[in-house]
Amino acid sequence: MNELKIDTRLWSSKARNLSPYVPGEQPQHDNLCKLNTNENPFPPSPKVGEAIAQALARQADDLRLYPAPESDELRTALAQLYDLDANQVFVGNGSDEVLALVFASFFLKERPVLSPDIGYSFYPVYAHTFGIELVQIALEDDFSIDPDAYRQPCSGIIIANPNAPTGLLLSLADIRKLASEHSNSVIVIDEAYIDFAQVEEDSLETEVSAVSLINECDNILVTQTFSKSRSLAGLRVGMAFGNASLIEALTRMKNSFNSYPLDKLAQAGATASVLDVEYFEQTRQQVIDLRESLTASLQSLGYQVLPSHTNFVFARPKEGNASEVAAALREQGIIVRYFDKPRISEYLRITVGTAEQHQRLIAALTVLHADSNTIDSTAE
Amino acid sequence: MNELKIDTRLWSSKARNLSPYVPGEQPQHDNLCKLNTNENPFPPSPKVGEAIAQALARQADDLRLYPAPESDELRTALAQLYDLDANQVFVGNGSDEVLALVFASFFLKERPVLSPDIGYSFYPVYAHTFGIELVQIALEDDFSIDPDAYRQPCSGIIIANPNAPTGLLLSLADIRKLASEHSNSVIVIDEAYIDFAQVEEDSLETEVSAVSLINECDNILVTQTFSKSRSLAGLRVGMAFGNASLIEALTRMKNSFNSYPLDKLAQAGATASVLDVEYFEQTRQQVIDLRESLTASLQSLGYQVLPSHTNFVFARPKEGNASEVAAALREQGIIVRYFDKPRISEYLRITVGTAEQHQRLIAALTVLHADSNTIDSTAE
Repeated sequence: MNELKIDTRLWSSKARNLSPYVPGEQPQHDNLCKLNTNENPFPPSPKVGEAIAQALARQADDLRLYPAPESDELRTALAQLYDLDANQVFVGNGSDEVLALVFASFFLKERPVLSPDIGYSFYPVYAHTFGIELVQIALEDDFSIDPDAYRQPCSGIIIANPNAPTGLLLSLADIRKLASEHSNSVIVIDEAYIDFAQVEEDSLETEVSAVSLINECDNILVTQTFSKSRSLAGLRVGMAFGNASLIEALTRMKNSFNSYPLDKLAQAGATASVLDVEYFEQTRQQVIDLRESLTASLQSLGYQVLPSHTNFVFARPKEGNASEVAAALREQGIIVRYFDKPRISEYLRITVGTAEQHQRLIAALTVLHADSNTIDSTAE
Repeated sequence: MNELKIDTRLWSSKARNLSPYVPGEQPQHDNLCKLNTNENPFPPSPKVGEAIAQALARQADDLRLYPAPESDELRTALAQLYDLDANQVFVGNGSDEVLALVFASFFLKERPVLSPDIGYSFYPVYAHTFGIELVQIALEDDFSIDPDAYRQPCSGIIIANPNAPTGLLLSLADIRKLASEHSNSVIVIDEAYIDFAQVEEDSLETEVSAVSLINECDNILVTQTFSKSRSLAGLRVGMAFGNASLIEALTRMKNSFNSYPLDKLAQAGATASVLDVEYFEQTRQQVIDLRESLTASLQSLGYQVLPSHTNFVFARPKEGNASEVAAALREQGIIVRYFDKPRISEYLRITVGTAEQHQRLIAALTVLHADSNTIDSTAE
């Protein structure tokens, strides 16, 4: 990349003052062990490729026509998955686009939005983009969320559940409590990772997703994505579930930014993914099993690992600081995510990969910590 | 669709006050002669389907991974097409998304934005969405644009060129004049239809696209789309060309709304379309030829047809009002676009279709106007 001097003379003040989101890097090298952006180690359902290939063979010509404007097939399939009406379902170009529309539709008010101090780092970016005050509520010392800490005036609440990068799960009882205590605000539950969550052993609940609450609570809006549990990060599809009036607001907001829907191939592929329930159940269980074995391996190396309900683990090395571990792994072509932020700078976020990737990671860490012990003892 | 009572209690005031864009309808019937949304009558390049199929076959598994974050291949192909640097090219989910980011990046200022009173009807929607004052400058009586009418304080100008729904072309000399007279504002030229434009016979210019001006004028931003001349409305890809500093503003704005790029298949298909220059040249010439023959046929029925530089014609029936003609055509399964708006309510916007579609349209109009003559003479 050549050096470019940026001239902001013609920019709006909004453009000048942005703080864009910076996603995890996407290096393109062979033999890289890429455990930094929480992609699924398994491919998408074979039905996805078949559906897109069929759509192409049957209708390559039809790419000349605009897509189904309301993405009806996809929304209907998603509605049936959760026993909802199609008018309780919204789809967009990835859940990040959906979340941007959520901020504009429900949070653009006089009062602040509440969110945990540790969560998805795009939330403060959206707030900044739309001129919304975001008040960050500190997680407890064990990184759990205390609903009582949210008892303050606000125009809405947004919580990633399971939370990222901690991986911890908030109970439906707590979500219901937030919704009832803030009945005039929208409570957004960002469930990017929910399909990897499991009911806690000591819980009386039978569900983990707040989608099960939306017929009961008209102010709960749930966002999800095809990028994680459905292995379709490359297709850019996200969705929201909620009361039909909330979905209508999102639809109007979308049609005021970009009135066109998902492209035809994304609609076809995403629909096929939703319909292949068996493959979905199988791969998500495999990811959960891999997560548990990765957790055990890291623990055997002395790592403290938070109980994860996602396809990543949040782990703290027993010795050696996390940023140095990340740097050392990188030298061996293993990329994990490190956040240089208060409270979490001693942790690494490691995506659940294949068994082979885990072997490579654990082997590298084993050598690394053996070396660092040696170095430490020499230094003493 | 069941009747739904919308409850706006939880909406932001922005959501309550939106006036979403309403695109042309997309009825899904067989044997419909669909001449209302300016889709291309020809399929996309066969290379598009091949590229997507290859991407699927080679990398169906890779749909699990996020797409190339900067859409490098596609941007490089577009840059080469116009002899630009890749950092002078921006791509998005259709030109409507690109235009939304343009309004936020360059027009969100204290002064109004200027635009013709007859133009793409999404512009007032964007202005409303972003709280920007849009001042509409009246077209001349012949629907042409007088650059001198834009000599007033503004934060920017946006003009569809060729204009829609008139189909008329503004010269590069006039665009250059606007840019130099408003050197502190961004002049946006929305070239959705530019590939169907031809240099006017009496002109000394050799180019029609303002992309040829962007190295000369740092305040000209040009938007284009794959939906019209590239027959890819179903794939949702649009782009902008401009000075690297303008492109950087768009990139930052995008990364503050939705940091992810076009999906993998759209990137692959769009790139293949750009590289197949021969097919592109061939089909665009065919559309131009069909437009000229449609124009002649309508003129022979007494229609006044504006000289079109697009893939539609804007035509005024000699007798019978335009809305009645549109309604009568609809009864025969032929859909054209009618705008119930001041100054243009006597016109129909008719998409250039296939030769067969034109035959069907002209046959229907011939009968219709013969009938209406009979009715008229009986009534007298």
